[in-house]
This record gives sequence, structure tokens and C-alpha cells, in this order.
Amino acid sequence: MSNENSLLIRTLRRQPTERTPVWFMRQAGRYLPGYQRIRGGIDFLQLCKTPELAAEVSVEPLEVLDVDAVIIFSDILVPLEAMGLEVEFGDRGPCMSDPLRDRAAIEALKIPDPVESTGFVMDVIRAVHGRVNGKVPVIGFAGAPWTLSCYALEGSPSRTFAAAQRMIYESPADLHLLMEKIADTVIAYLLAQVEAGANALQLFDSWGGMLGHQAFEEFSLHYCRRIMEGLDGCGVPRILFIRGAGNHLEKIAKMVNEVGVEAVGLDEMTPPEQALTIFGDRCALQGNLPPQALFASEEDLRCRVRELLDAFRGHPGHVFNLGHGILPPTPVANVQAVVDEIRSYT
Amino acid sequence: MSNENSLLIRTLRRQPTERTPVWFMRQAGRYLPGYQRIRGGIDFLQLCKTPELAAEVSVEPLEVLDVDAVIIFSDILVPLEAMGLEVEFGDRGPCMSDPLRDRAAIEALKIPDPVESTGFVMDVIRAVHGRVNGKVPVIGFAGAPWTLSCYALEGSPSRTFAAAQRMIYESPADLHLLMEKIADTVIAYLLAQVEAGANALQLFDSWGGMLGHQAFEEFSLHYCRRIMEGLDGCGVPRILFIRGAGNHLEKIAKMVNEVGVEAVGLDEMTPPEQALTIFGDRCALQGNLPPQALFASEEDLRCRVRELLDAFRGHPGHVFNLGHGILPPTPVANVQAVVDEIRSYT
Repeated sequence: MSNENSLLIRTLRRQPTERTPVWFMRQAGRYLPGYQRIRGGIDFLQLCKTPELAAEVSVEPLEVLDVDAVIIFSDILVPLEAMGLEVEFGDRGPCMSDPLRDRAAIEALKIPDPVESTGFVMDVIRAVHGRVNGKVPVIGFAGAPWTLSCYALEGSPSRTFAAAQRMIYESPADLHLLMEKIADTVIAYLLAQVEAGANALQLFDSWGGMLGHQAFEEFSLHYCRRIMEGLDGCGVPRILFIRGAGNHLEKIAKMVNEVGVEAVGLDEMTPPEQALTIFGDRCALQGNLPPQALFASEEDLRCRVRELLDAFRGHPGHVFNLGHGILPPTPVANVQAVVDEIRSYT
Repeated sequence: MSNENSLLIRTLRRQPTERTPVWFMRQAGRYLPGYQRIRGGIDFLQLCKTPELAAEVSVEPLEVLDVDAVIIFSDILVPLEAMGLEVEFGDRGPCMSDPLRDRAAIEALKIPDPVESTGFVMDVIRAVHGRVNGKVPVIGFAGAPWTLSCYALEGSPSRTFAAAQRMIYESPADLHLLMEKIADTVIAYLLAQVEAGANALQLFDSWGGMLGHQAFEEFSLHYCRRIMEGLDGCGVPRILFIRGAGNHLEKIAKMVNEVGVEAVGLDEMTPPEQALTIFGDRCALQGNLPPQALFASEEDLRCRVRELLDAFRGHPGHVFNLGHGILPPTPVANVQAVVDEIRSYT
């Protein structure tokens, strides 16, 4: 189960490898036929909580695409539910039926024991290991405090997350209380995933990039640092993915170097040469094909894959991935072509 | 009507001034009582097309806030309607009832004569001048081709504008055809605004920042450049505002310098020191208080205003503004406090 010799883990540790490993954010999802079949009979959250089915969904990309890692199928809102928020599955994805509206609601939130409250996630990890049988590493994940706060305060998916954004200025102390509780929850949750067998961890701050520059440091970066520090010594590589933080790459690099974070996920807005200049070779770099590029013709797509591999050539730790999650209408054959091109070109 | 001696225009031209000028993006909007009263009796698009009422709404911020410029009340979708798309007013703002779905629909679009098709906008500019009577300059504006393409292809407001994003990879030639038509339309539209009396122009590429780094150059920056070049010699300062382009500030600065663009609008994600380093003093810089900061306590807000003024002190052309538009629930008194602080501090 340690999987230290796998292609992905060696790359995340910037050790010599024979080729570039590849996995895709949201690789277990609606674009895949097996996922669609299973989701036809069960709702999204129930699927997250049914370890054998969640494991089946997690492993489908390994079978269909031959990727170099399996990320567990789950939802970033799972720890919020464990804290005491009610999560339901709406038309546009999971949402909060009763978003936080005042300090009392924040004070009432628990910092849950991850095994007691979200043991099903640990069961998914064990079930996935049972299926992959050491072939590839298993990636665990969580949402970062700012991103989770956006959902906890807004309720439904939003373009602007105005409630969380206003709270930065209207009641920052309450927001910090919420984020500290979320940070403690997420650290325990991720450590429990490692305990259950996760071979690497990714932290997603999907909405970090929407913050004003001062708020970014105080509410996104600060809590990402805290979580990365909380995972220090956990024994598996940590991947930090903050989306849309193009103004803040130097600050992220400084934090990553200070804390010794193993890898940074790059969004598709970041030019590889910029990432290489700013992050250098002191951490692995993961990314960053635009998810929409998977709608290009196969010839064009293969060309873009080679361009990206060339751009990171010479960097000791490049993991091929997208800059964001796979989109639901993505053609499976194009995702297969990406993996094939990576395997044949490097 | 030339207004070359006004505080805003001198600042945009980086000439010496007695203090920092201020205006706010979306300063004529739902947070103001007069706007709400007028909108109670007329729908949004009809208001845009009724010059006397649109002028009244445009001028309200001058009366209520004592700002240093009036931006005309209008909508970025107006030129798309003139090209032949049907715009309607939905629950979540204006949208397209019949978004573009194929090349034939793009080919069918007109490049309209701006005076014939959107003369009401020119009438708004003249009516605003009649009301402000030379007291402050009048700003005209348009959306950039990428942002307008997002709406033309998606129909309704969206978090992702997936249709436009996919077209970059699926049918880039069709997208370029659309964007060239939009660019020609926008250039003529903005030149007609100058003809009607606009004293400065702002181009909004609100969704430029969501593009992958290669697509950003090809679909956002390229067309912004084309429009800025098309306005060269028009006699009024040009302000370029591309939102969320934190990875691309150097490229924007290079273009701005080559074309001689007078001013760049900064979003709230951009640290002032970063903007000062990258743009230097070869263009004016506008921005960039977070719109959400207007929900802070007055004391905190005034402190943030002073910090921002201090950050840009010494730059020859700083225009105070937000990093994005004023939010509907913003308290008017806080916006007034910002203007008051700027007037008393500088």
C-alpha cells in the first residue's frame, strides 16, 4: 500500500522517472459510461457514502484510461456535513439547505472525529486499494477552508459567493472562527485518509482566486499554509491547488518552499514558463491543459499534449493533469488520446 | 464638451493634478434610490433605450456622491442586439433568447452603423452632457469581443461560459469570425460615442481572465489590442480593463506600451505594488478597492481608502475606483465616505 515506487509518487518527490505520469482532476465523473450507469440508480451524496460503489466509480478511469493514479470519488462538502451542516443534492450539484447566517451557527459547528463521522471515505480508500491492488497510488483530497467557507455561507453554487466575500469586511472575526474550525476539521480528515491508505493528498482552493489581494493572503493562503503544516510528516506527498491565483504565484512559491510542500497544481491560466520561473525545481508541478482542449480534434489535442510535455521537459517533477476538472460532455476517446500521447511521447 | 482640463482627463493623461479623481464602476445602479425608483416603472433594456431617463440615472451618482466623472448608463449587450441578436431581460439580468449555435448564425450577423442602430446611446451621452454642463467628463464604454462572445454564444449569464470556451478548440475559425465582427462593431460604436461627446472610453473584458494562457493571447488580448488601435487618434483617453488576468500583466503592459493606451483598470486581485512594478508610469492606473470593502465599517473603510491612496502615491496617473462594479446591496453612505476620504486625504 505504500506505493513509494510508483511513477506518480516518485515524480511528486522529484525523483528520476522513465516518463511523465498522468491523472485528471474529476477523472471519475459524468463523462464516463460506468459512472452514468451507477449514478442512474443512486443520488450523488448517497454514492459518496456507499464505499463499494464509490470505489467502483473511482477505479473506472484506471480501467478506461490507464491513468497513473486513482483519486477517490467523493465531494468536498463531506467534511462540512460532518461539522453539522445539512448538505443536499440540488439540480446544480450539492448545496447547503441551511447556510450559516450568524456567529451562533458558526459556534455550534463541531470539529468532528473523521473516522466516526466520515468513516465511509476511509472505507472508500480501502475499497479502492482492494481493487487497484498496488498497481497505482490512491489520491485523497479535501477542499481548502476558503472554498469550503464559500459553500457553508452561500448555500448554493454561485458565481460570486457574495456572502463569504462580504463577511471578510463585515465580520472578519466570525469568518476566521469558521475557517479555523474548518482547518482543524480538514487536517484531521486528511490525516485519517493517509491512515486509511491514501498515498498522496490534494488540497483544492478552487475559489481562492476571487479574493482581493489582501484577503487572499489572510483567508486563502494563510489557511492553506496551516493545513500543509498540519500535514507535515504525514508521510505522503501534498499537492496544493489554488485556482485563479495568477497575481500571487510568488507568494505561493514562498510559502511552499518554507513549508516544504511537495507539489503545486497549476490552473490553465498559468503559462508553464511562468510557473517554471517562479516555482523552479523546488517542488513538483502538476497541470495544466485546459479542460476545454479535450474538445479539440484528436490531432490538435495530441499536438497540445506534446507542447505541454516539451514545456516542462527538464523539470524534475512534472505530473500531467488538466488546469481544472474534466467537463461532463468530454468525449472519452479524447481523454484516452491524451494518455496515449503521453505514454508514447515521453 | 472637451473637458480636457478636468481632473479625470488630466490624470488619465498623467498630467499634474491637485488630488486623485474618483469614479466607480457600476456607480449608476441598484444601490441608489433614484435608480430603484425609475427602474420600478421600466425594464432594464427599455431604460437603456430611453435617453432622458438613462441620463437621469447616469447623473445620479454625481449628485449623490460628488464623483469626478459620469459613466453613461447602458448595457454591454447593446451592440450585440444591433448586430442582430435578440436580447431580453431575464431574472438574472439581460440575456440572449437565441444564442449563436453555428457558423451560419455568425455569418448572418451585421456590422451595424452605430448611429442608425444604437443612436439612443449617443442621445444618452448628449443628454448627460446637457445635465452635467461641463462639470465633469462623461465616460463611454463597451464590452470587449471575448466578453461579448461569451454572452452571444451562451445566452444566459454563466459561471463558466462553456459554449464559448469549447468553441476555442472545436471551431476556432468560426469564433474568430464572430470576434472580428464584434471588434469592428465595437470600434465603430466607441468612435460614435466620442463623436457624440464621450470624454473618455473604457473597454471591459470582464471574462478575459477565465481563458487558458494561450487562448488569452489569441482571444482576449489580441482583440483588445485591435480595438485600442482602432481608437488610436480618437482624441480621448482609452481605459483598458481586463478582469482576472493576473498571469498576464506583463503581456498587457507590453501591448499597452506599444499601442500607447492611456490607462489600465486594475481588478482587486492585483496588489498595487505589483501593478506599479509591471506597468510603471507609462500609463495611468485605475482601481482597485474590492467592491466588498464597501460593506466594512466606515472607520475600516476610510483606512483602506488611505492605504490605497498611499500605495499609488507618486504615480503620475492614479484614478481611484473599485476592482469591479458596485454590488446592489451596497450602503450609499459608505460610498459617500470613500469619496469624502479621497477629497480630504489627498
